[in-house]
Amino acid sequence: MGVDQQKSEDIKRILTNKGFAQFGDALLNFAYSLALTETTGKPKGARVPDKALAEAAVKAGLRKHLPRRVGRGDIANCLEALLGYSWLQKNLTIDEIVALLKSEALTPADNFARLAELALSRLEK
Amino acid sequence: MGVDQQKSEDIKRILTNKGFAQFGDALLNFAYSLALTETTGKPKGARVPDKALAEAAVKAGLRKHLPRRVGRGDIANCLEALLGYSWLQKNLTIDEIVALLKSEALTPADNFARLAELALSRLEK
Repeated sequence: MGVDQQKSEDIKRILTNKGFAQFGDALLNFAYSLALTETTGKPKGARVPDKALAEAAVKAGLRKHLPRRVGRGDIANCLEALLGYSWLQKNLTIDEIVALLKSEALTPADNFARLAELALSRLEK
Repeated sequence: MGVDQQKSEDIKRILTNKGFAQFGDALLNFAYSLALTETTGKPKGARVPDKALAEAAVKAGLRKHLPRRVGRGDIANCLEALLGYSWLQKNLTIDEIVALLKSEALTPADNFARLAELALSRLEK
């Protein structure tokens, strides 16, 4: 197996890991709540909608690392897994995540896509 | 209004604030997931059960700051509000929360109760 193929297998294993996705879900809801709180100046808590995550995962090109037949939930999970893994590996800090989520120029899905691209670029190094 | 009564009113206002409770919910689920991940050595994500939070709130003596007629959900929320507020005020760090949640000698409800007592003692200063 070539180096590139090995790397692609590793990424696929991370993106489809259920534990990383569950951890990433908790991480993202916290970072998203913090971004909302800092943006509005009022304490807020909210779950990130699966729809925005799935859209972001597609925009960031994560789809090609997944099996052919997957539903929207699985696509959203793969973005959560990528970010959960990256945070646990110290490839990404909460401050970086919050700063990117606070960009008002873009939609939430665009912000999450940029976050995924950043995480992926550090993973591919 | 005396100083103690004023302080008690302030605490009541924090504990019954919906925004702090929502933010605290996201914070606690993240800290709890991180504690589970560090304890088991495997990535995990989990929501803290309302039952454990309500039990902890009662053990920590938060009940007396709430209106007389409240359900279990409201009691759980007041602990989330206290911890959400305390973290936002930098009275409590995520590392402190995770360390307390990792204590294996106690039940989750006991750990959350100790956390609430710590937050309350810093709030009352």
